Amino acid sequence: MDNNLLMQLLRSVADGRTPVDDAAEKLRNLAYEDIDFAHIDHHRSLRKGFPEVIFGQGKSPDQIIGIMEKMHHQESVILVTRVDRQKADKVLSRFPEAIYHEDAQMMVWQIHTPQIVGHGTILVISAGTSDIPIAKEAYLTAKAMGNQVETVFDVGVAGIHRLFTHKDLIDQASVLIVVAGMEGALPSVVAGMVSRPVIAVPTSIGYGVSLGGLTALFAMLNSCSSNVAVVNIDNGFGAGYMASIINRG
Amino acid sequence: MDNNLLMQLLRSVADGRTPVDDAAEKLRNLAYEDIDFAHIDHHRSLRKGFPEVIFGQGKSPDQIIGIMEKMHHQESVILVTRVDRQKADKVLSRFPEAIYHEDAQMMVWQIHTPQIVGHGTILVISAGTSDIPIAKEAYLTAKAMGNQVETVFDVGVAGIHRLFTHKDLIDQASVLIVVAGMEGALPSVVAGMVSRPVIAVPTSIGYGVSLGGLTALFAMLNSCSSNVAVVNIDNGFGAGYMASIINRG
Amino acid sequence: MDNNLLMQLLRSVADGRTPVDDAAEKLRNLAYEDIDFAHIDHHRSLRKGFPEVIFGQGKSPDQIIGIMEKMHHQESVILVTRVDRQKADKVLSRFPEAIYHEDAQMMVWQIHTPQIVGHGTILVISAGTSDIPIAKEAYLTAKAMGNQVETVFDVGVAGIHRLFTHKDLIDQASVLIVVAGMEGALPSVVAGMVSRPVIAVPTSIGYGVSLGGLTALFAMLNSCSSNVAVVNIDNGFGAGYMASIINRG
Amino acid sequence: MDNNLLMQLLRSVADGRTPVDDAAEKLRNLAYEDIDFAHIDHHRSLRKGFPEVIFGQGKSPDQIIGIMEKMHHQESVILVTRVDRQKADKVLSRFPEAIYHEDAQMMVWQIHTPQIVGHGTILVISAGTSDIPIAKEAYLTAKAMGNQVETVFDVGVAGIHRLFTHKDLIDQASVLIVVAGMEGALPSVVAGMVSRPVIAVPTSIGYGVSLGGLTALFAMLNSCSSNVAVVNIDNGFGAGYMASIINRG
Amino acid sequence: MDNNLLMQLLRSVADGRTPVDDAAEKLRNLAYEDIDFAHIDHHRSLRKGFPEVIFGQGKSPDQIIGIMEKMHHQESVILVTRVDRQKADKVLSRFPEAIYHEDAQMMVWQIHTPQIVGHGTILVISAGTSDIPIAKEAYLTAKAMGNQVETVFDVGVAGIHRLFTHKDLIDQASVLIVVAGMEGALPSVVAGMVSRPVIAVPTSIGYGVSLGGLTALFAMLNSCSSNVAVVNIDNGFGAGYMASIINRG
Amino acid sequence: MDNNLLMQLLRSVADGRTPVDDAAEKLRNLAYEDIDFAHIDHHRSLRKGFPEVIFGQGKSPDQIIGIMEKMHHQESVILVTRVDRQKADKVLSRFPEAIYHEDAQMMVWQIHTPQIVGHGTILVISAGTSDIPIAKEAYLTAKAMGNQVETVFDVGVAGIHRLFTHKDLIDQASVLIVVAGMEGALPSVVAGMVSRPVIAVPTSIGYGVSLGGLTALFAMLNSCSSNVAVVNIDNGFGAGYMASIINRG
Amino acid sequence: MDNNLLMQLLRSVADGRTPVDDAAEKLRNLAYEDIDFAHIDHHRSLRKGFPEVIFGQGKSPDQIIGIMEKMHHQESVILVTRVDRQKADKVLSRFPEAIYHEDAQMMVWQIHTPQIVGHGTILVISAGTSDIPIAKEAYLTAKAMGNQVETVFDVGVAGIHRLFTHKDLIDQASVLIVVAGMEGALPSVVAGMVSRPVIAVPTSIGYGVSLGGLTALFAMLNSCSSNVAVVNIDNGFGAGYMASIINRG
Amino acid sequence: MDNNLLMQLLRSVADGRTPVDDAAEKLRNLAYEDIDFAHIDHHRSLRKGFPEVIFGQGKSPDQIIGIMEKMHHQESVILVTRVDRQKADKVLSRFPEAIYHEDAQMMVWQIHTPQIVGHGTILVISAGTSDIPIAKEAYLTAKAMGNQVETVFDVGVAGIHRLFTHKDLIDQASVLIVVAGMEGALPSVVAGMVSRPVIAVPTSIGYGVSLGGLTALFAMLNSCSSNVAVVNIDNGFGAGYMASIINRG
Repeated sequence: MDNNLLMQLLRSVADGRTPVDDAAEKLRNLAYEDIDFAHIDHHRSLRKGFPEVIFGQGKSPDQIIGIMEKMHHQESVILVTRVDRQKADKVLSRFPEAIYHEDAQMMVWQIHTPQIVGHGTILVISAGTSDIPIAKEAYLTAKAMGNQVETVFDVGVAGIHRLFTHKDLIDQASVLIVVAGMEGALPSVVAGMVSRPVIAVPTSIGYGVSLGGLTALFAMLNSCSSNVAVVNIDNGFGAGYMASIINRG
Repeated sequence: MDNNLLMQLLRSVADGRTPVDDAAEKLRNLAYEDIDFAHIDHHRSLRKGFPEVIFGQGKSPDQIIGIMEKMHHQESVILVTRVDRQKADKVLSRFPEAIYHEDAQMMVWQIHTPQIVGHGTILVISAGTSDIPIAKEAYLTAKAMGNQVETVFDVGVAGIHRLFTHKDLIDQASVLIVVAGMEGALPSVVAGMVSRPVIAVPTSIGYGVSLGGLTALFAMLNSCSSNVAVVNIDNGFGAGYMASIINRG
Repeated sequence: MDNNLLMQLLRSVADGRTPVDDAAEKLRNLAYEDIDFAHIDHHRSLRKGFPEVIFGQGKSPDQIIGIMEKMHHQESVILVTRVDRQKADKVLSRFPEAIYHEDAQMMVWQIHTPQIVGHGTILVISAGTSDIPIAKEAYLTAKAMGNQVETVFDVGVAGIHRLFTHKDLIDQASVLIVVAGMEGALPSVVAGMVSRPVIAVPTSIGYGVSLGGLTALFAMLNSCSSNVAVVNIDNGFGAGYMASIINRG
Repeated sequence: MDNNLLMQLLRSVADGRTPVDDAAEKLRNLAYEDIDFAHIDHHRSLRKGFPEVIFGQGKSPDQIIGIMEKMHHQESVILVTRVDRQKADKVLSRFPEAIYHEDAQMMVWQIHTPQIVGHGTILVISAGTSDIPIAKEAYLTAKAMGNQVETVFDVGVAGIHRLFTHKDLIDQASVLIVVAGMEGALPSVVAGMVSRPVIAVPTSIGYGVSLGGLTALFAMLNSCSSNVAVVNIDNGFGAGYMASIINRG
Repeated sequence: MDNNLLMQLLRSVADGRTPVDDAAEKLRNLAYEDIDFAHIDHHRSLRKGFPEVIFGQGKSPDQIIGIMEKMHHQESVILVTRVDRQKADKVLSRFPEAIYHEDAQMMVWQIHTPQIVGHGTILVISAGTSDIPIAKEAYLTAKAMGNQVETVFDVGVAGIHRLFTHKDLIDQASVLIVVAGMEGALPSVVAGMVSRPVIAVPTSIGYGVSLGGLTALFAMLNSCSSNVAVVNIDNGFGAGYMASIINRG
Repeated sequence: MDNNLLMQLLRSVADGRTPVDDAAEKLRNLAYEDIDFAHIDHHRSLRKGFPEVIFGQGKSPDQIIGIMEKMHHQESVILVTRVDRQKADKVLSRFPEAIYHEDAQMMVWQIHTPQIVGHGTILVISAGTSDIPIAKEAYLTAKAMGNQVETVFDVGVAGIHRLFTHKDLIDQASVLIVVAGMEGALPSVVAGMVSRPVIAVPTSIGYGVSLGGLTALFAMLNSCSSNVAVVNIDNGFGAGYMASIINRG
Repeated sequence: MDNNLLMQLLRSVADGRTPVDDAAEKLRNLAYEDIDFAHIDHHRSLRKGFPEVIFGQGKSPDQIIGIMEKMHHQESVILVTRVDRQKADKVLSRFPEAIYHEDAQMMVWQIHTPQIVGHGTILVISAGTSDIPIAKEAYLTAKAMGNQVETVFDVGVAGIHRLFTHKDLIDQASVLIVVAGMEGALPSVVAGMVSRPVIAVPTSIGYGVSLGGLTALFAMLNSCSSNVAVVNIDNGFGAGYMASIINRG
Repeated sequence: MDNNLLMQLLRSVADGRTPVDDAAEKLRNLAYEDIDFAHIDHHRSLRKGFPEVIFGQGKSPDQIIGIMEKMHHQESVILVTRVDRQKADKVLSRFPEAIYHEDAQMMVWQIHTPQIVGHGTILVISAGTSDIPIAKEAYLTAKAMGNQVETVFDVGVAGIHRLFTHKDLIDQASVLIVVAGMEGALPSVVAGMVSRPVIAVPTSIGYGVSLGGLTALFAMLNSCSSNVAVVNIDNGFGAGYMASIINRG
């Protein structure tokens, strides 16, 4: 309930147009309406170009379609993460306007043309070819949330010179997302080159003591650069989201 | 804000005694006043003989005394856990009515005589001599919270017959707290003998692969008896607290 | 061996009625005397309306049917947990009176109408959509054990206000079961709102450092609320069972 | 090496001005060409009012003083983290203008008056009394880096209503730092209330399965809110630094 | 090289029949020939009724058949562990005299009738229905190695009285193998009842914090009974082998 | 109470030399004796053939003396493990007949001259100098339990030839105890040389990824030799005990 | 691009045989070549003396072919690791000159006849039959990199004498690669026999507490021999590579 | 027994100077003398400038002195690792010629002037100030083993340009030792720059998820550069030793 509505109601009580009992009834649930209000406010801010995301893993195509049907009247963009080709095809047959990105296992339905609302450019860097799907998830999320996004893929620390040839892109980015598996060293190196915030995304890529991404995660948390913060293993969506809200500054 | 106050306020608006702006102001923060109200209600229920506990570890004697000074007017019993002898002596010189139990590293200040509010008897069983401090912490907590409490100490599963000689006590208990380190098998065995709830407390006692209590903890969570729930390693206080509120049923 | 029996035996040795070897033999087995008695007593308590549960995972439909055939004359309710649709259909073709709940992967055969034997209401709260199967397992178990059970599903801590709209249900519950995966924060929040016992159930839902439920489990064991005890990851049945016996007080 | 330089070099080889061996040598080091430039550029960005930090742990007072002597001509602020009282006193006797904050185990030497360069307000929230030192480290860092900083300490999730009384501060913050040990649930709850970025700091506070902060860390990485990124356990400095550069937008 | 051969060689040197150089050459490699000799001796002892075992997992039916073809002339019994039905059928079509035990995933080919060479009886006890395959592997191994073997299956610690009904078998066993998953408590309880050695076998049975058998393993290693030693998770063969050589005394 | 003493007492009752009341008095605590902080299991000698051992760690000298006072009338030998010099001196001043072995941190009180009851020789082998204390604990335990015991210390796998110089001792042992820290490879190598059972004892010796003995433990459990079973890290006593009962065969 | 080819090209420019533009064209991508999904590091051969290897796992046949097409003009040998039969067949249909080694899951395309550039012989030793694929990967790599390579397969520590029969080969090797799973003891034993460097390769072979190779890895890192260094679990390629560059001395 | 002695003995038998029985007696233990011979040979090769090392941790000054007294007649250099100042002073009072390096906690006694036997230069690089002690241990070891050794300390990946200023040293090294704690990224970056072998040493430096060096260790094992092999956490000595024998090539 917003302030205008509250003033209106109280004036109406003062005027005798609304009986005390009716007003009491309306106000009795105000506590949770107010929390709802917080909810709505939060919700509204979400709708301002922020996508709603559906975590597709473990959901059936029908469940995904069901949620999309409820959402698509109110949202300007809908993201579905972790959808394989097969599921995607079923959803696409219902919503053919949506676009499926198989490399990122992600579906983007841009209902209204996005406005660029981010101030600067977000740069997504990834270490190995196998890290590209997660990097793509971050890229598509940041894009859908109204940002200018650039990418530099396949620049591992074992051939560090490949990184330096992209120095201009790196210097000009306002937020950087760095995706790496195995030893997870790339975010440290990149963060040492810039003064802007780096969101590090460990991936589960690797074998042996990569431990499903834990080694990369721990290496990133131990980064000797201070402008690094980390999200969960393989959480490309989260990195794209976090970078976007930082970029709105 | 309770209902009477709300009706009173609205009537006062209807009567013109309270201006709309003032009423709006009062109602605007209602959401959090209501949560405050919940707070107070919760707080009151806590005061009904439930002790406030001070986690002594990492606090200086002066900090403990400071908190006790604020609390002792409103509480009927104050517990301080994880206090060593040295700290305890300093606190006792300020509050000589408190009693220090060195084996449990715990201080109990019974400001008012406790009433027995629990329905049945809580039985605390411990596996080894070294588990006694944690068992004592559970015992003292349950006692301070107004329960009839009995104890059976030093009955490990390697001499299971020692357990059976206490069968009567075990059968008659309404809640059981079972404390064990090392392989943590005792709660499973005890729980298999009774139909009442068992709160299992793993201790950090042991060496090698006892892993500081993790082995006992995991064994207890894997118990093949269903009437077992578990608290954190060495959390005698938590077990005593949980058993007490179950015993009030 | 009680004192009278010991005196009797020794007198009989003194009289020459019992040879020394026989007496030694009897004393050697002293530790295990009363145990058969324990057996019978324990068995009786089990029969007092508590359901027998069959852990379906890893058992063939034939094995499940075999066990059910032996049990159904003596039990008033039989639960089978962790049964998939396919297995369930085979069992149902033999026992069509049983009901299969696919979402909970659980079969309930209510042979006799259950009496409500629990004193209060058990409330099952779950955090995310994916936690519902485990929450349902807890719900069905508590229901089958003769309790009034209510549910509040899908109220994660990221939208904490959704929890508050159920404040009445929460306040009135005599025991609460809180099911959550990922960061496992919900039980702490709920337990901070009530004075009654909370049984926390971590689920294996999540990815990356959810570590198959370990993160949720550890978070719950570390709860800063004292009225929380925890069961194994995904152990909805255990939570329902534990809550039921607490609710019988 | 840009194209012009390459053409120039090859022409010079064709002309006989550059011997083949010299050209080969130049091409062999091709990978490392622009790097010195990166060096200088990076260094300059560091000098733009960002503090240099000295990690005090494991360094002697003399080593700390030595580093400070070299730095204080070029820096406007110097931070020393993880210094105990004893070390601090020795350093202060040499640099009496520095200020030692014992609760945060941190020394701040503000050589030139800081300008507020951050756009909005950074809010530091901490869960328990024992988390305050880390929260203070974050606070002092953000302050020294030229930000408006506010704090809300001691608002754990077990009494979630205490959080809501600070709703205004929370809503108005442009970046939030949330510090918590034990179950690490607070960042999720806070992040669910706001649309701005949350930097989560796990602390090593707790016992048993708090596992020295790993449980809080993993819980935070599993947050169901997407506007959360995480730094290393007890890394208050890193959180303050990261929040500051986000706040400069 | 045995003593006679050495004397012969030296005499031949003394006689001048063998030149010094040739003798030196022969003696130079003596170290490793002697070890070869040890080898043969060891090998012979292995052939005295001890089965050769083929670890079937990861081997193709053809590879298994190939090894069996080389072995069956020299061995009186051949064991193949971890073979599924499909592989077994292919092997059986080549060696129809072998017997496949599907529950134990094990094939036994008793080429010569085994003699009972063990002194006493080996007793295999298992905790749950799901532990039976591993228990059967231990049983078949001990049987094939010439022992009297008895079994008591499905006696978990949650119904400890079921164990006591087999007290006679337990008392009379000369070696005991105790197989258990989940909390792994059974070996401790059994070992507390007897004076003979107990070989404990943890199984990977369980879910949640059973951690693929690690919890049972650690619990068994932490046993408060001293007559327990432990083999690897699911290593029924190893337990049967170890019990057999103990039983030969 | 050991079997001989029991038979003697009963014969004396049968003869009329001991009145029934006196015998009853002696036997009353046979199952166990409750001395406030301990339930002493006097029955153990009858049941298991060896008295309880006192785990000295975490017990005060007075507690150790208290338990020894109750035990020494009925037992022929008392072992106290993990006692440091200081504690030992206090206990020795009360029981000067006991002998303290500082290297093994163990006290042995041989009340009656031990009979050699083991059939063969137990051989204790240890890998490094630092493993000797644990090896000594195993040695003293096996010795006190009536066995012929030999030792071969300091023969690590990095100089495998040192092992072979003891081939005779190794071949003739009826049970072997092999103690090793770091990579824990020695038991596998020794077990490959013999057909008798090997009890492997991992020690906590090492640094880095020795992980407090876990690496040695896991390596031993993974031994490719089948005649190996393992006890807990640093559990020399357990290995000595287990080897002794195997040696009684 | 290898050094010979570079010198050839530059000389041809100096001679006027190759126009500057053509040479520039060839050298333009020297630092790396960007082919959409990969940044191929052509400079590596110059910098490191060996071309990039293609990690086949997670790459499609088309991606592998794409990379090979770019590389084969400039490299004398191309390795593709972790390719299964199916993928290999597709790649072979494009590059029939390459040879696929199914046991090592590796493809080797020797474009120019390799020169033996290593000084001595590399010896690859493996412990069990199941370790052979990894050992083969090391063998093929070292071979392709221009070394004399010998192999000794299937010599586990449980039959240590089998190792000694190969003493000559072992003594003469200039670098040794030792591959072992399970308890990982073999590298320690081998390293104790020689003064040359040993590269240890843990494999993921085993079950239970082999922990996917972690146990072998940790055991190797804890080796009491100092001439051992370790590569990642199952990293046969890395061991072959490391041994090769050591062998070039 | 060396070859000359063997020939001498056999000639003496051939001459009739030594009776066959005496020679047989001498040769009977030859197997193990031969292994001793291997030992001695190995030992001799060790003495050719390879230091014997005494692991000082856990040894008393008297034990260290005792070992040094036995060794110093036969060795040209003696190293003692992990000795603190206090122990060192006691040892120095007995052997004043030895030199104690407090930063490396290491004592070096160069009895004879070392010859440079290594072919090239060993370069020791370390990441942070706190890693220097371990780097120094590696440096002193390689030095004592007769190598030209250079050092580059304090060049972390967060300021990667600092590394490039030492490019010449790095390019010219024949073996590189790279020491790093925290995220352990430095060895990957360095190894990507060179074609020579890199020995990576993880250190236990760091906090939070550095996990006592495990994170650095795992990151190094996951290095995307192939010319890296790793030694145990904090094992500077091992790295120096390994680099030395590689450098002798």
